[in-house]
Amino acid sequence: MYDNRPLNQLDTFENKKVEILLKNSNKITGTMKAYDLNLNLHLEDAEETDAESKIKLGSVLLRGSMIININEIK
Amino acid sequence: MYDNRPLNQLDTFENKKVEILLKNSNKITGTMKAYDLNLNLHLEDAEETDAESKIKLGSVLLRGSMIININEIK
Amino acid sequence: MYDNRPLNQLDTFENKKVEILLKNSNKITGTMKAYDLNLNLHLEDAEETDAESKIKLGSVLLRGSMIININEIK
Amino acid sequence: MYDNRPLNQLDTFENKKVEILLKNSNKITGTMKAYDLNLNLHLEDAEETDAESKIKLGSVLLRGSMIININEIK
Amino acid sequence: MYDNRPLNQLDTFENKKVEILLKNSNKITGTMKAYDLNLNLHLEDAEETDAESKIKLGSVLLRGSMIININEIK
Amino acid sequence: MYDNRPLNQLDTFENKKVEILLKNSNKITGTMKAYDLNLNLHLEDAEETDAESKIKLGSVLLRGSMIININEIK
Amino acid sequence: MYDNRPLNQLDTFENKKVEILLKNSNKITGTMKAYDLNLNLHLEDAEETDAESKIKLGSVLLRGSMIININEIK
Repeated sequence: MYDNRPLNQLDTFENKKVEILLKNSNKITGTMKAYDLNLNLHLEDAEETDAESKIKLGSVLLRGSMIININEIK
Repeated sequence: MYDNRPLNQLDTFENKKVEILLKNSNKITGTMKAYDLNLNLHLEDAEETDAESKIKLGSVLLRGSMIININEIK
Repeated sequence: MYDNRPLNQLDTFENKKVEILLKNSNKITGTMKAYDLNLNLHLEDAEETDAESKIKLGSVLLRGSMIININEIK
Repeated sequence: MYDNRPLNQLDTFENKKVEILLKNSNKITGTMKAYDLNLNLHLEDAEETDAESKIKLGSVLLRGSMIININEIK
Repeated sequence: MYDNRPLNQLDTFENKKVEILLKNSNKITGTMKAYDLNLNLHLEDAEETDAESKIKLGSVLLRGSMIININEIK
Repeated sequence: MYDNRPLNQLDTFENKKVEILLKNSNKITGTMKAYDLNLNLHLEDAEETDAESKIKLGSVLLRGSMIININEIK
Repeated sequence: MYDNRPLNQLDTFENKKVEILLKNSNKITGTMKAYDLNLNLHLEDAEETDAESKIKLGSVLLRGSMIININEIK
């Protein structure tokens, strides 16, 4: 299984629109530009959604330790 | 006991349907594709269930630090 | 005291039925199959008990960072 | 993707006005002067906004482990 | 002060009855058998006390990261 | 940006009066005497303010992991 | 500032009565006997004070990760 590391999945998300669920229950969507081994993410055209509203963030750096999961929006 | 490391159990889950309990009490089910030593998981056909609803995530990267336990669904 | 490391106690639990108290106040029982230095555990015939119900998990990997304590059920 | 590390994005924020969302739900704005790999930030002309008020902090060191995300204010 | 490291105090607790306060406000008492540098403890004849009840645990491994303090019961 | 590390800012606070916001929402003021890379701080003439009261601490060691931000009081 | 590391301040507290504020809002007082780089402390004649009561702990090992700050009682 080690020949197929889970972070390799993020390579298939490059320049794709992704959705990220955060530990504070907020969601961030954006175009995936870069990641590192701590799951820090660089997103473009990002928007953050909480229980009440949606905020445009534009170009954003997201700290990996806040992330629960990342999936592609198709 | 060290000859039989607990993470080896995950090898037996390859391409099997698993259920993961998260620290925020949500559950994720999906087909196990890859893991690493931090328990980061790559799942396919994933669905997340919280207290109110079930959401289709599709192809997902799940951060290992959010996981309580992983078991196979038979 | 270092000649008698605490994790050695887990060797005496091999193939025994153990009870594990988790940080979320749930309890898991099961047959101890493997552990590592992070206290990740492989259990068989596992069951999880929360405030309301008991769920059969079967073969389970339990993340060590969620564990408060482990004791044998006699 | 590793040729394009996410923290490189912070280089493009140098001397720009940024907004930082913190884990306690507060927001800090300020001019980005320096960062390190833990996301510790040196900001000038910083202001912190919580649910009730806005406080001028001036020159501030912000601990990286408190940060959720960083974006430029345009 | 480094000639007198704080963990050396635990050597004086060997085979003594100790009381441990946990981060979840529970208390565990037991006979101290072993410790490591993460403060993982092996206790015998252990009992756990929470707000409502006292439970006999017998031989227990206690995870060090849950511990606030350890003192001898005289 | 790495030529100008954020912790260098703390050098400019030496012997100055600083205000520190803590994760428990308390604030500590004091004269900055020393810091390390974990942001552990030695303060003199320190005072801690919580929601209800102000307490004189005098000479204090403050654990870096509790800190949100540090700014000079002018 | 690195010539004057903050933990050196603890050397001046040797055999002095200190007060420690913990993350659970409790306070511990005691005579400082030893510390290490994780701020684990060995105290003698220790007492713990919570919202309701004061408990004599005697000789105690206090885990450093629970500590907010340490000051001398004069």
